[in-house]
Amino acid sequence: MCRSGPVSRCKRHEPIPEDVRRAADVLERRYAVSILYASHTGCTRFTEFRRALGTIPPATLAQRLGELERAGVLRREVRDARPPHVEYVLTSEGERLRGLLDALAAWARS
Amino acid sequence: MCRSGPVSRCKRHEPIPEDVRRAADVLERRYAVSILYASHTGCTRFTEFRRALGTIPPATLAQRLGELERAGVLRREVRDARPPHVEYVLTSEGERLRGLLDALAAWARS
Repeated sequence: MCRSGPVSRCKRHEPIPEDVRRAADVLERRYAVSILYASHTGCTRFTEFRRALGTIPPATLAQRLGELERAGVLRREVRDARPPHVEYVLTSEGERLRGLLDALAAWARS
Repeated sequence: MCRSGPVSRCKRHEPIPEDVRRAADVLERRYAVSILYASHTGCTRFTEFRRALGTIPPATLAQRLGELERAGVLRREVRDARPPHVEYVLTSEGERLRGLLDALAAWARS
């Protein structure tokens, strides 16, 4: 009855595991996956994300960046440059999303 | 400068590819990823999805199932049983999301 593989087929009538539900929750917001994709292509600054995402309203982008920071996948850093500016960089947890984003890109192109 | 891998680092200042943006758009809705995860664990009926997702409002579940059907990842089928009932089954495109959901589960547990 039980098919092997990371997503088990045995749990048909059981709730989704809490850790999976929490992880999915990070992605299930408008533009969240695209922001993470843009992070993985090298975007760190607000204007870079805006350029990469095109249609995103700035207020939504600001809100998502804050949520992704609180979720532990992005880290907000103030750069001592001229002028000083803020960057959003992937944490090690955020870096570990690369497999998922690679799978997304492969799916998009299949 | 260019790191290899499916998510290219070369495109820092370019828009996210349209196909990736469209694919991300399917996932970027509350509960969408969890519904797809539940599909991959064998859920097909409305009540099974509700049980798997726990907190989802029924109207939201109905809306998402319709959206995922229109996006081509689920197919709505009426079963000639007693009583007749509806099932939502993964299309071949939906089946190809397994890699992404496996990556999600791995990330959730890392």
